[in-house]
Amino acid sequence: MKIENIRPGDIEAESFRIIGELLGDRKLDPRYEHIIKRCIHTSADFDYADSLYFSEGAEERIARGIREGAVIVTDTKMAQAGINKTRIGKYGGQVLCYIGDSDVAEEAKSRGLTRSYVSMEKASRLGRPVIFAIGNAPTALMAICDLAEAGQLDPVAVIGVPVGFVNVEASKERLIRSGIPCIVARGRKGGSNIAACIVNAIQYSL
Amino acid sequence: MKIENIRPGDIEAESFRIIGELLGDRKLDPRYEHIIKRCIHTSADFDYADSLYFSEGAEERIARGIREGAVIVTDTKMAQAGINKTRIGKYGGQVLCYIGDSDVAEEAKSRGLTRSYVSMEKASRLGRPVIFAIGNAPTALMAICDLAEAGQLDPVAVIGVPVGFVNVEASKERLIRSGIPCIVARGRKGGSNIAACIVNAIQYSL
Repeated sequence: MKIENIRPGDIEAESFRIIGELLGDRKLDPRYEHIIKRCIHTSADFDYADSLYFSEGAEERIARGIREGAVIVTDTKMAQAGINKTRIGKYGGQVLCYIGDSDVAEEAKSRGLTRSYVSMEKASRLGRPVIFAIGNAPTALMAICDLAEAGQLDPVAVIGVPVGFVNVEASKERLIRSGIPCIVARGRKGGSNIAACIVNAIQYSL
Repeated sequence: MKIENIRPGDIEAESFRIIGELLGDRKLDPRYEHIIKRCIHTSADFDYADSLYFSEGAEERIARGIREGAVIVTDTKMAQAGINKTRIGKYGGQVLCYIGDSDVAEEAKSRGLTRSYVSMEKASRLGRPVIFAIGNAPTALMAICDLAEAGQLDPVAVIGVPVGFVNVEASKERLIRSGIPCIVARGRKGGSNIAACIVNAIQYSL
């Protein structure tokens, strides 16, 4: 295995070329190809060619939301860190995460809930259009569905890509059934990196 | 798929129980089981049961380094965000990342290098014991190897888990051959989440 000499600015394009080559004859939905390929680029995991679910219009809603300065709320500091803020900031948006807030921790403890759940309740009180990017906590998706069902939240869209073994798949399937505009990585896989990468794929296409 | 009612504090233990169940008869090296299982927990990807390489003594060096207040340097803000700082801070350590520094950006541009490469050079001038946690950039691993070969860097250890398609595997194999104490995810997979999770697995075992 030889190290290739490649200019820094060319690495990403070359990566996407290799991904295309490795996908071979596999056809991706052209509306979502930029998102699917960026998830593969982020993870080197070709499962994302099969597992990503897009509700009709969700991608356009997220794109429009970013252009109109919607707030992006994440469930982890990692997802928050992974989202490129330059363009989002230019459009008047922000990327927020409440998981580390002391009021969230206290309330979660006293009510026997996860901090992720309570941090979504806090986001529901923002009074601004919100795009959720959830890469870790199934309970964050459950909170979003609970709040939407109770008429207390109407998200622009939800990127629902928690990873793991406990309630992960069930929470993603509940999100899909809820009718909330969403992009979901079905199955156990996902992650904060995938949540951030989907936001980035959409903003880079603007 | 039903959502199970589980107490927030029990989710992680239940996840690890399920991972053990899914691993079945597969035996993991007991010295590294906590790290391998946490990588699977973070990614839902069982490839990590096979792909993780541990140079002799690297895990102990990282554990000792954390206890002795070594600095942890990451190549991305995401890996920095994903590392739990409470315990590291208690031992006198810090988690640093220079990728966003303007001097790094300027120097990278003028020398035609990646910011990742130059940020490792910056870390080599810290004058303190450094554990590197590299989850994104092959060029960060190349910089570490170049600096070590030139006698300008002697890391406590390197967690080398970049992800991707261009020079990723070659850079990881070079790190393994270099003799620098290291933990590596062989192949294309890895990521900032995996880099952070390996640091966390080791610090949680202290």
